[in-house]
Amino acid sequence: METAKRTSPHPGQSPRPRLVIQTIDGAPKPYNAAAIEDLADVVYTTPDGLGTALPDADALLLWTRFAGVLQRAWPAAHRLQWVHVAAAGVDSVLFDGLRDAPVSVTNAHGVYDAPIAEFVLGAVLAHDKQLHVSKGFQRVGEWRRRELTRTAGQRVLIVGTGGIGRATARLLSAVGLEVRGAGRTERDDDPDFGTVVPSSELAEHAGWADHLVLIAPLTPDTRGVVDARVLAAMKPSAHLINVGRGALVDEPALVQALQTDQIAAASLDVFATEPLPEEHPFWRMDSVHVSAHMCGDVTGWQDAVADQFLENLHRFVEGRELRNPVDKERGYAQKVPVPAS
Amino acid sequence: METAKRTSPHPGQSPRPRLVIQTIDGAPKPYNAAAIEDLADVVYTTPDGLGTALPDADALLLWTRFAGVLQRAWPAAHRLQWVHVAAAGVDSVLFDGLRDAPVSVTNAHGVYDAPIAEFVLGAVLAHDKQLHVSKGFQRVGEWRRRELTRTAGQRVLIVGTGGIGRATARLLSAVGLEVRGAGRTERDDDPDFGTVVPSSELAEHAGWADHLVLIAPLTPDTRGVVDARVLAAMKPSAHLINVGRGALVDEPALVQALQTDQIAAASLDVFATEPLPEEHPFWRMDSVHVSAHMCGDVTGWQDAVADQFLENLHRFVEGRELRNPVDKERGYAQKVPVPAS
Repeated sequence: METAKRTSPHPGQSPRPRLVIQTIDGAPKPYNAAAIEDLADVVYTTPDGLGTALPDADALLLWTRFAGVLQRAWPAAHRLQWVHVAAAGVDSVLFDGLRDAPVSVTNAHGVYDAPIAEFVLGAVLAHDKQLHVSKGFQRVGEWRRRELTRTAGQRVLIVGTGGIGRATARLLSAVGLEVRGAGRTERDDDPDFGTVVPSSELAEHAGWADHLVLIAPLTPDTRGVVDARVLAAMKPSAHLINVGRGALVDEPALVQALQTDQIAAASLDVFATEPLPEEHPFWRMDSVHVSAHMCGDVTGWQDAVADQFLENLHRFVEGRELRNPVDKERGYAQKVPVPAS
Repeated sequence: METAKRTSPHPGQSPRPRLVIQTIDGAPKPYNAAAIEDLADVVYTTPDGLGTALPDADALLLWTRFAGVLQRAWPAAHRLQWVHVAAAGVDSVLFDGLRDAPVSVTNAHGVYDAPIAEFVLGAVLAHDKQLHVSKGFQRVGEWRRRELTRTAGQRVLIVGTGGIGRATARLLSAVGLEVRGAGRTERDDDPDFGTVVPSSELAEHAGWADHLVLIAPLTPDTRGVVDARVLAAMKPSAHLINVGRGALVDEPALVQALQTDQIAAASLDVFATEPLPEEHPFWRMDSVHVSAHMCGDVTGWQDAVADQFLENLHRFVEGRELRNPVDKERGYAQKVPVPAS
């Protein structure tokens, strides 16, 4: 590691920094590339070219979520001061070398809050209104009238009390659901959740919920937070929604819980291995609704990320404090502002 | 017709009326049957037995929606003063004999408002978040990441400004959608819709909407309100949601509009013929989401209807004005209260 060559932990030393932008899936430059290039000397590169481009870089914009890309190129990052990750979850980007180095990490905090909240509400209503069940009857041409569930008054336990969890809590509350949170710190006066139970004791609280929503960052504390014990504590009618990270769930335990009717259904946007391997049973289970890690990707999301990055680049050039800093030890945004609700 | 034998158009003449309750699909009595039987002499009957039971009835509770049941039994209804229909739409119950007779008709106004509003929101989100598209990819084991639509800011035009339409407008507004109504009377200061456009000019306004929602009662004015012209005016990305009555839509024109990509998708809970005939193309269209006329049926709906009926039975016995009277000429509830919003 070459941390000694980083002359200062404080950004903004250079009036014209050298910036490396990892391009996304062969897509064109950010829509505001001209404004970015006004402030910095920019090199665009694919993940493969990162090792070559990194030695001269002061700052790096990582558009994709390929785990290990930065870690493999890390020995070449002699003067890097700042990494901006164009995602909410930074678990795949953090590694010991980056954690220990005087390099600031920022993320796309906020960009995905409202889109993911909407996705969760969609999953809640699809379950309560049996939209997937109706589609199954449609496929076999069967007219089968059933009784649906009134969504207002249903109980939702949201694991993860960061920005996305809060946006979700507010949206679900607006539709009349009863919401609680699960987080590190127990409390009963949270402005968005009211009651927050300790996620370390999830098994004792999971039985309360009709919908259990996972939006927590993946950290050593949250890995496997939904295990066989939690699943056994859930209602047989309950619905699990995972929009956080696949490894929050013990997937084999979830398969078993669904197959033995311990819980009713799961809507999963994230998986321990992505893309979801073709032999995985989730693909073929009627009670599992698979989507391809896309719940926060709404049309225009790249532009929102690019706007946010440009704002931080101005701050970097001017030597001001960067927005949306990541706590590299905890593995998620340092401060979550609590909006007035 | 034996209207002369109805001694008075005013209910409440008899201290102990004779009441016929049409039982639903062989289900047991209403949960509050004891309270009902305290107030009236009750005969329970299947639709087939209605002709036999009706001659002595002062009042009738119709639980089901079999069109024509009452009409066929009508010649026997010598002393009937009141019909309560346990549904929001009364189109299948109204016929000339009933319309012309001094018989009050009331309906289940309000019971379905919030449940149907939730169903519509579920259909909106399922479309914007591509839940059915994801299910299609899941079925073939394909991991395909796409961009979704941000629902807040999408435009919804709701055809039908009665109680259900208003509840839907309020719920969709709470989630951030931009809502307008289409009704008989044009206005721009409606408390729930803001702008209400004339439904007689729907073709001129349909192009504004991302989601076009049909919740109007079926009347001569609304029959076929969504025809080929309206469909041609809609956005290619638009989504039609019908939770009103099937005959509000020209179904062959809708099939063609979907097959030629004039519009993107349709979520249909109601059909011109129900159950939807097995040869109907809707069953086999990926862009059509079929459910079995159940969008308002949430667990406990029969109890809510029974509560509402008992309240009106008290009023009937006491000679007071009945709640939720139907305007038999217009074919829907006479007065729609506008709640504070």
